Amino acid sequence: MIKVAILGYGVVGSGVYEVIHKNEKSIAKKTGGKAIQVKYILDLRDFPDHEEPHLFTKNFDDILQDPEVSIVVEVMGGLSPAYEYSRAALYAGKNVVTSNKELVAEHGTELMEIAKEHNVNYLFEASVGGGIPIIRPLNQCLAANEIEEIYGILNGTTNYILTKMITEGSDFAGALAEAQRLGYAERNPEADVEGYDACRKIAILTSLACGKYVNWRNVETQGITSITRSDVAFAEKYNAVIKLIGFAKISPDGAVYIRVCPMVISKEHQLSDVNDVFNAILVKGDSIGDVMFYGRGAGKLPTASAVVADVIDAAKHIHINKIITWKKVDHDFLVDPSSVVGRFFVRANSKAVIDDFANAEFLGNDGDEWFFITKEMTENAFTETFANRGAFLRVLD
Amino acid sequence: MIKVAILGYGVVGSGVYEVIHKNEKSIAKKTGGKAIQVKYILDLRDFPDHEEPHLFTKNFDDILQDPEVSIVVEVMGGLSPAYEYSRAALYAGKNVVTSNKELVAEHGTELMEIAKEHNVNYLFEASVGGGIPIIRPLNQCLAANEIEEIYGILNGTTNYILTKMITEGSDFAGALAEAQRLGYAERNPEADVEGYDACRKIAILTSLACGKYVNWRNVETQGITSITRSDVAFAEKYNAVIKLIGFAKISPDGAVYIRVCPMVISKEHQLSDVNDVFNAILVKGDSIGDVMFYGRGAGKLPTASAVVADVIDAAKHIHINKIITWKKVDHDFLVDPSSVVGRFFVRANSKAVIDDFANAEFLGNDGDEWFFITKEMTENAFTETFANRGAFLRVLD
Repeated sequence: MIKVAILGYGVVGSGVYEVIHKNEKSIAKKTGGKAIQVKYILDLRDFPDHEEPHLFTKNFDDILQDPEVSIVVEVMGGLSPAYEYSRAALYAGKNVVTSNKELVAEHGTELMEIAKEHNVNYLFEASVGGGIPIIRPLNQCLAANEIEEIYGILNGTTNYILTKMITEGSDFAGALAEAQRLGYAERNPEADVEGYDACRKIAILTSLACGKYVNWRNVETQGITSITRSDVAFAEKYNAVIKLIGFAKISPDGAVYIRVCPMVISKEHQLSDVNDVFNAILVKGDSIGDVMFYGRGAGKLPTASAVVADVIDAAKHIHINKIITWKKVDHDFLVDPSSVVGRFFVRANSKAVIDDFANAEFLGNDGDEWFFITKEMTENAFTETFANRGAFLRVLD
Repeated sequence: MIKVAILGYGVVGSGVYEVIHKNEKSIAKKTGGKAIQVKYILDLRDFPDHEEPHLFTKNFDDILQDPEVSIVVEVMGGLSPAYEYSRAALYAGKNVVTSNKELVAEHGTELMEIAKEHNVNYLFEASVGGGIPIIRPLNQCLAANEIEEIYGILNGTTNYILTKMITEGSDFAGALAEAQRLGYAERNPEADVEGYDACRKIAILTSLACGKYVNWRNVETQGITSITRSDVAFAEKYNAVIKLIGFAKISPDGAVYIRVCPMVISKEHQLSDVNDVFNAILVKGDSIGDVMFYGRGAGKLPTASAVVADVIDAAKHIHINKIITWKKVDHDFLVDPSSVVGRFFVRANSKAVIDDFANAEFLGNDGDEWFFITKEMTENAFTETFANRGAFLRVLD
């Protein structure tokens, strides 16, 4: 019998409880006969109508000091006290499983090191891609590859909003309001629509893929708030759609180009069909070529199912560290994004702008807004010539 | 240092050797510092120009009796002597990694049991989906789910042929000849085009998902040899494409409906965009909903990279059985396919056939061939009414 404590009984926490109960028997098969049982749930709120009210505690020490608890599921979110609790649990020789991308992106390096020292595991499959298996495939299934690129649609909220704008011609504000109404976007949607959530996720994936900690603060990040209906319409004219993409390219010399921004994507591209709250992540390895992982990037049960998969893995590896790790390095290995070459989708505020770009592909105009796509050039060269005369998006080639 | 022996130096075997060499350093990081080294290559042929000729042996006993060899990579294909060698290696306490779907589909149950008894592993990620991670995700990442459905495009050769027929209007014979010219199809293409390869793969996936051995011989299997240009054209008219699908549905009571057949798939469906030699596998779990895995289903390096990922996993779990397993059960849990309800895409040899199907959707005719789609009905009811007056395909709904 493996005893588990759940920290935080919100959407994901209650999903974890539900999945562990519902699939009790098949889970026990997967661990080789060891049943998994929730012994504690930590939450400051009261849940008087819960079917097992005796599980609840408001005191983390109850969990920390109970030697029977070998796995702590941290699904509180936020940095504090999630960080302190995770740290203490690992020091106490307990495995920690989390869906907390903020914490992994911020303190993952340290927490994985503590786990290693204490021969336990810090597992975070659910921190990226919700239920989509990506952390473990990246670490294990693609272990024989040098990863060259990882990119994809990492945030369901923004993908829902953009899908609405593309298929129904909504504007950003209207699509956001609809997403909030349906519970896909939070009342304060900043973390999603400004790209911060996608940024933490691509930082985690890239750290894993290149073995070096990528600080999410250093990732050039742009959200979707300034995308207009005409942007969507002229992308359509170009047989393309606009998607928020987390992108990383790892050179053989270890340099990493990483950024989050809305991109213009040809409808021929696999990612262009990924709609609504779905996520998809493309990984390019030197041996395997392109592999894509697709599914629900968020939601109670998908995320809970990823958490519980880690719980099962932890149960199979009590006191065996699984060597999932990246290191902090003190040199800067991030490529200056302004030196990177690409094409640009431009919404210019005067027709004259086009003349400054040789061989640009003109798409048309909507009143005083002139749309065109540049040929390949460095971002530096582009911004210098463009001189802020309108807005632009990058093209995914 | 972990010493490995490769059995069979064909396409996959030489790929395994290449990947282990090329990514030596990053592989050592993934195993926690243990380098992986090829100590033997077993092949009956001579490779005088190989860079390490001293690795070659024609005698399996050299490998079996060398206690230094802890991992045997069986990439010979076929049942014998692959079966005898794998068995002997497991009995000798060596881990076995394979890409041999024939062997896994036939003797996997026994080989996994021997592995468990001897506290080693029998791993076969590369047996399904080439380089696409699917076995491990199914076992580990989706471990918290009851799997309800698994289906997808599991054979690259037939998908290449069908893609040619769809996009270039080729007929089956022409597309097959082109696939053979490019090395995508073998000179004797039966295993691919008759669906036997896809059948073994869906049998393996389903065995894993339901925990019970599905004998591939009992899987209703139909290939793509009788698909015509007009089938493709009228599917197109219906905004659909024809793909060879391995399909399994697992009921909560444990009953399994499994089959391999070409299916008519709406262009709205994710699988409809999977072209050329690519494979894609959709898994539906009770918690996670739909997840899709997409990538190159075959080829030297993709398959080798899946094999080497298993080698790394085995190296991290020397003498720890990973509990990947299904059991043989003595009752029959396969659903009689003729009782299953679905819609049928019909190429009838007379117009009169349509009148026998109430509410059929008429698609048109090509000379004496009349195309229509039935409403939902059991396969039994369909075949009785249809009475072999032409040909038909199933619709994926």
